[in-house]
Amino acid sequence: MSATASPDVALAERLFAELRARSRDGEGVTRDAYGPGERAAHALVREAAEALGLEVRADPVGNLHMTLPGRDRAAKRLLLGSHLDSVRRGGNYDGAAGVLAGLAVVAGLRRAGVVPGRDVTVLALRAEEAGAWFPVSYPGSRGALGTLRPEELAVRRADTGRTLEEHMRAEGFDPDFVRAGRRVLGPDTVAAFLEVHIEQGPVLEAEGVPLGIVTGIPGSRRLRAARVIGEYNHSGATPRRHRRDAAIALAELAHRMDEAWLRLETEGHELVCTFCVLATAPEAGFTRIPGEAVFQLDVRSVNPRNCDRMFEVLYDLVPRIEARRGVRFELGAESGSRAAPMDAGVQAGLKRAAEALGIAHRMMPSGGGHDAAAFAQAGVPAGMLFVRNQNGSHNPKEDMRIEDFAAACAVAARWVAEAAA
Amino acid sequence: MSATASPDVALAERLFAELRARSRDGEGVTRDAYGPGERAAHALVREAAEALGLEVRADPVGNLHMTLPGRDRAAKRLLLGSHLDSVRRGGNYDGAAGVLAGLAVVAGLRRAGVVPGRDVTVLALRAEEAGAWFPVSYPGSRGALGTLRPEELAVRRADTGRTLEEHMRAEGFDPDFVRAGRRVLGPDTVAAFLEVHIEQGPVLEAEGVPLGIVTGIPGSRRLRAARVIGEYNHSGATPRRHRRDAAIALAELAHRMDEAWLRLETEGHELVCTFCVLATAPEAGFTRIPGEAVFQLDVRSVNPRNCDRMFEVLYDLVPRIEARRGVRFELGAESGSRAAPMDAGVQAGLKRAAEALGIAHRMMPSGGGHDAAAFAQAGVPAGMLFVRNQNGSHNPKEDMRIEDFAAACAVAARWVAEAAA
Repeated sequence: MSATASPDVALAERLFAELRARSRDGEGVTRDAYGPGERAAHALVREAAEALGLEVRADPVGNLHMTLPGRDRAAKRLLLGSHLDSVRRGGNYDGAAGVLAGLAVVAGLRRAGVVPGRDVTVLALRAEEAGAWFPVSYPGSRGALGTLRPEELAVRRADTGRTLEEHMRAEGFDPDFVRAGRRVLGPDTVAAFLEVHIEQGPVLEAEGVPLGIVTGIPGSRRLRAARVIGEYNHSGATPRRHRRDAAIALAELAHRMDEAWLRLETEGHELVCTFCVLATAPEAGFTRIPGEAVFQLDVRSVNPRNCDRMFEVLYDLVPRIEARRGVRFELGAESGSRAAPMDAGVQAGLKRAAEALGIAHRMMPSGGGHDAAAFAQAGVPAGMLFVRNQNGSHNPKEDMRIEDFAAACAVAARWVAEAAA
Repeated sequence: MSATASPDVALAERLFAELRARSRDGEGVTRDAYGPGERAAHALVREAAEALGLEVRADPVGNLHMTLPGRDRAAKRLLLGSHLDSVRRGGNYDGAAGVLAGLAVVAGLRRAGVVPGRDVTVLALRAEEAGAWFPVSYPGSRGALGTLRPEELAVRRADTGRTLEEHMRAEGFDPDFVRAGRRVLGPDTVAAFLEVHIEQGPVLEAEGVPLGIVTGIPGSRRLRAARVIGEYNHSGATPRRHRRDAAIALAELAHRMDEAWLRLETEGHELVCTFCVLATAPEAGFTRIPGEAVFQLDVRSVNPRNCDRMFEVLYDLVPRIEARRGVRFELGAESGSRAAPMDAGVQAGLKRAAEALGIAHRMMPSGGGHDAAAFAQAGVPAGMLFVRNQNGSHNPKEDMRIEDFAAACAVAARWVAEAAA
């Protein structure tokens, strides 16, 4: 193991403040993907990396690679990074924390005069916030990894109406790189990818633990446009046996699925099951039996078998409720994503580092999706460190204590010292 | 019992056709309360009554009284009637059937030269469709019965924005009559009120029975603006134990109340329980745990104890679900109405008449509210005959077979012959 150098957390603090100042939008921040907000963030990070004397280049899809050269420049490199875009009026830490943690670690090595055994590259990735800008998963990291499909360049940004390809070109990048099936990162050139990220959920805060070592990023099975069709009737004049009540049918489905989730959890299975929307149609009103209801269902688990278990419950309940209540379910198209387990070796390395430093931590699945999933699915050993945070994320009140961020930087630095030895 | 005269169903058929022609609105009919639509219907009915030689007068709130004088003019009279207004783009029979049934019965007596023992008055009532026009129950019949409160004159018609009082004056009537606490009908002058009405529900059609003898008009307990408050969180990153999911809490409440209703029904209690609206708030969306949901609850039964039973279930469930799921219910104001049992003597008389005529019938509670409730609550013996109908009511497809209407007229005529003897 090469020497561990203290990360330069003060540098990260200055950059957090400057990032917030450059992207302030009301109470929160807005850094729009492949647009002015993200561009300003990349410019700031590039200046900082150049000031540190790192090798800096943008790849053809716009990710910024900031490299501290190692002794063996041909060896597989280590990557530390995350994304710089934010949702509209989101918080300052979602994404940026991972990039600035990487810079803090590398700045620490630089300051201490440590030359790692292999290159260490800090990555500022593009366009991770799919819900806010382009409806496609991880176009930045997948563009670099060669797993973005050419047809995905045609998705349009929700607010501008322009395609991903048009946005890339307008920012000076080269979508033909994607069309040609090329890549700049892969298992042949990368030893591991580590992403530091705020947790976004309440677990670490509630349990009083500053850090989480992520076991995997869940896959999902989803219904985004499901309906229950019944019949509108007079709520006074229609006895029970003549009803086709869409709302009660949906309430029964949701309640029974929730009880099935509770049973699975009691048996030790980790998953989440959410009816994000559950609503009578706009035609509903007083003295009418609801004739239509809509719902959205989001089931996630690191273990795909758990998603399947919940959908087995769904497919078992639907025909029984239809028969019992005289309604018809139209589940619509199912979408979803594959789970991405984090690399066992990276997890073990992070755990060793945290233990050596005496930093409290817990193993935990991720809730949301992250760029690390794209790396894992491309065959690159990937890991994540979650930083305890407050007030969730994707909102202006999102918060993080700097001492928790410093703990994550310390663990990342120690992991780098071992992995880049 | 005086002689039974065949009702003049052909007259009613002509008047149905003419009513439809005068109030056609797209596929349906519109007869707006205290407005041009209702005015035209009253004018048509007045012409028909005058042609029959009845004594015709409008009372101070606009109800039309069309009287066939009896032998004893001082005896308490019999009333046959219903309302002439309709909902917007409703059907031709809801309300009008009861007025035209009354005219058919009286025309039959007139044609046969029968003079009843007491006055028989056909009543065309005003403004029964509270959901469509004025948000107040039975202002026409209650205006005549002296039970309309002066402050209720200030309610406004949903579409015109003008008050009930303004509408009454514009149609030439005298709301000061209400303000003075006066009445033209009451238990001292009326022997009984009989309202023929389409069923509005599917029971008679489904069971192949043409007529229903109504046992009572249900009372209700209602929540029109209830909410469940939870907390919006990330649907992936928030484990079960940290959730405050408003939608699942509401789904549990609705499903458990539905099961409680089923138990009560199995035990022989007649009631209906409807979540007319059950919906996540507009802020709901994909990847969010719903932080708020709203609902409307409508519980009705002829037996008020059954409404109370369901609200006992509600008040038992709410704190348990709150504790279990970390949400808060805000039930809002409760509204409701008293049940109005139909007069036992009138029910028995209608049953004798149907049996004597060999007309299939069943005893049944009403589902919706009707003017007969106002009469019953004012102490007037009241009864209702339901006519089997198709496609519900309050919509343009509402339908009724003329032979079923004729059966109701025949039963009404025989009941009049006995009651007016």
